[in-house]
Amino acid sequence: MPITIPHRILVAPSGFKESLDASQVAEAMTRGVRRVLPGAVIETVPMVDGGEGTARALADATEGSLVPMVVTGPVGTQVPSHFALLGGSASGVAVVEMAAAAGLRLVPADLRDPTRTTSYGVGELIRGALDARVRRIIVGCGDSGVSDGGAGLVTALGGRILDAAGDPIGDGGAALLDAAELDLSGLDPRLAETEIVAACNIHNVLCGPRGVARVFGPQKGATPEQVEALSDALEHWADLLDRECADTLDSFDVRTGPGTGASGGLGAALAAVCGARLQTRFEVLTDGDVCGVDLDAHIRRADLVLTAEGAVDYQTPRGKVPAEVAMRAKRHGKPVVALAGSIGEGAADVHDIGIDAVMGIIPIPMDLAQAVSEAAPLVANATERTLRLVTLGCTFAATA
Amino acid sequence: MPITIPHRILVAPSGFKESLDASQVAEAMTRGVRRVLPGAVIETVPMVDGGEGTARALADATEGSLVPMVVTGPVGTQVPSHFALLGGSASGVAVVEMAAAAGLRLVPADLRDPTRTTSYGVGELIRGALDARVRRIIVGCGDSGVSDGGAGLVTALGGRILDAAGDPIGDGGAALLDAAELDLSGLDPRLAETEIVAACNIHNVLCGPRGVARVFGPQKGATPEQVEALSDALEHWADLLDRECADTLDSFDVRTGPGTGASGGLGAALAAVCGARLQTRFEVLTDGDVCGVDLDAHIRRADLVLTAEGAVDYQTPRGKVPAEVAMRAKRHGKPVVALAGSIGEGAADVHDIGIDAVMGIIPIPMDLAQAVSEAAPLVANATERTLRLVTLGCTFAATA
Repeated sequence: MPITIPHRILVAPSGFKESLDASQVAEAMTRGVRRVLPGAVIETVPMVDGGEGTARALADATEGSLVPMVVTGPVGTQVPSHFALLGGSASGVAVVEMAAAAGLRLVPADLRDPTRTTSYGVGELIRGALDARVRRIIVGCGDSGVSDGGAGLVTALGGRILDAAGDPIGDGGAALLDAAELDLSGLDPRLAETEIVAACNIHNVLCGPRGVARVFGPQKGATPEQVEALSDALEHWADLLDRECADTLDSFDVRTGPGTGASGGLGAALAAVCGARLQTRFEVLTDGDVCGVDLDAHIRRADLVLTAEGAVDYQTPRGKVPAEVAMRAKRHGKPVVALAGSIGEGAADVHDIGIDAVMGIIPIPMDLAQAVSEAAPLVANATERTLRLVTLGCTFAATA
Repeated sequence: MPITIPHRILVAPSGFKESLDASQVAEAMTRGVRRVLPGAVIETVPMVDGGEGTARALADATEGSLVPMVVTGPVGTQVPSHFALLGGSASGVAVVEMAAAAGLRLVPADLRDPTRTTSYGVGELIRGALDARVRRIIVGCGDSGVSDGGAGLVTALGGRILDAAGDPIGDGGAALLDAAELDLSGLDPRLAETEIVAACNIHNVLCGPRGVARVFGPQKGATPEQVEALSDALEHWADLLDRECADTLDSFDVRTGPGTGASGGLGAALAAVCGARLQTRFEVLTDGDVCGVDLDAHIRRADLVLTAEGAVDYQTPRGKVPAEVAMRAKRHGKPVVALAGSIGEGAADVHDIGIDAVMGIIPIPMDLAQAVSEAAPLVANATERTLRLVTLGCTFAATA
């Protein structure tokens, strides 16, 4: 009996934080597969989460292009940035990655004051996309360095946020406490004719005890006092949005609606002011009709699905990339292996969510710094080890 | 079509140095297999190499027993020791593990002077085995802390090594330079009626540029001067053995014959004085007719062979346990997976010698001390990961 081995391999990894982006992980995995199955058909879908690298990855995946643009960064200085114009079936779609204009990485460590940083540049990128006459703008949320409730974005798109004296308020989330009026008469009219979809973590909400100021403020550098001040300011901002944008919001709750807290409250402004749909990031970013990358179609064609993440542990089932990939793969009955930079506590539970097997990349006792610096060859080697074990298993039906 | 998965698993690992002995590794691997294949038939053959743990492992494997004995240790103090009386088909066979009487572990760090340590206790163990009226004695060489050319062993068995004045020489290899006469008239006569097989690394030779003093002296604590002194003394000892034991040696070269350098030259004395056969350790220790453990028979029954070693690297093909296991498995066309405490440089070459796949045990960045202290669960988990990947592969013939 001839041996049946997997012929079509789908490689759909996450990036490894501080180490390799999803495309680089996919490349390394592809090298590893080739060493064992030189004749395999390998498809790669680098899995982005809306944060850093999302625009580039989707441009690459759809054979689209990146449009460079200089915008106002989170601390007010000009920074080189970009948005993507997708190609293929997603022609006419732009991807604006908020991290490319207001990401935490763009905030110098000594200026980490989330009460003052602004999302203005994200609005500029959206204007750039509107200039390109696209029919849909996907706004990728994640890795944000701001907490201004999207106030900067609103301003960049022509809105005016005024204090009681009728003067524009300052930059940043804390200044929102002064906001008395939201004047949208000058808002870019093209927004009304363009579909805007925000790819976000819908568990993030704008206000309340699990609001964005309290949950993310500290990791963006806020002191406990700043967290409270921000929290109050965003409540006040929510009141204003609620009042001025009731029509656009329809009955959507701008305070605690799913995704309103995404990227420091950018979600709220996108929904209220731009009429954006706030959607689960992986739904948006794996839907061929929305972004041109049809993960399900790739999965349907595959014999074996390989995914990866920096860590596989108790958090993996809670919406991490390997879990999202496995969930979709199981709908089609496909086997899934997850590579892991580290296999941590609770990794055994991942078998319950459709990950059939896990392979670690660490070959010898080493520290994290070494693992990070050698990540690409380590991933390639671990993929090779994985395929050797899988193909060894393939021989059983033949020999038994 | 039903899925065919491996049903009979052979677990044949080495010990992990400074961490787990071969039996403990086999136990941990068995736990890992059970988690994935609870109904599998698992046979274990802890692979010993003649060094530490050999007597106990063979006693366990053949349902024999350990005979405790107090002997003279390498630095002259009395130490608790033991030899094995094998059971089953190997009834009537004793295993004397030289490391149990003259191992490096029995030499206190501040007394590591290989010019003075003695193999006397090994001779005492052999006498103990002769007292038990066995028909065959397997002498396991390895992990030795002595370099006395087996002079201590000869003395313990009734030989007399005299200086020019007719007085017995002192203990240790350096004193051999004084040896003028070897009087074997008092040698235990039972030796002549007992088959003695030394299980050794046959690449170790007594004399010459690759002689045991030069190759192993430094790691036993010898200074460069001591290495030269030992080398000269062992040359002189070889002359004496050659002259006095010509009949026993037949035409075997006591200076550079295979295995003469085993355990600090113990091999030479065993061959010359006791008429021992010096044999490749894994040949002796896996031969059912010799030691009651028939590795080939186990392999023939297995669907899948799992082996393991502390390190899999460029040295693995040079006679390490996984290589020996793989070589035998390939004769029977069986798939082999090697678990590795660490996967080092050159590990890719192991596929050429019949190891189909390798799995590392390190799940996350960690240092060697942590890996050593958690070795048992790490091995069990890595075995589970291995079996998950293999059984995943098993599904292909069924689904394709």
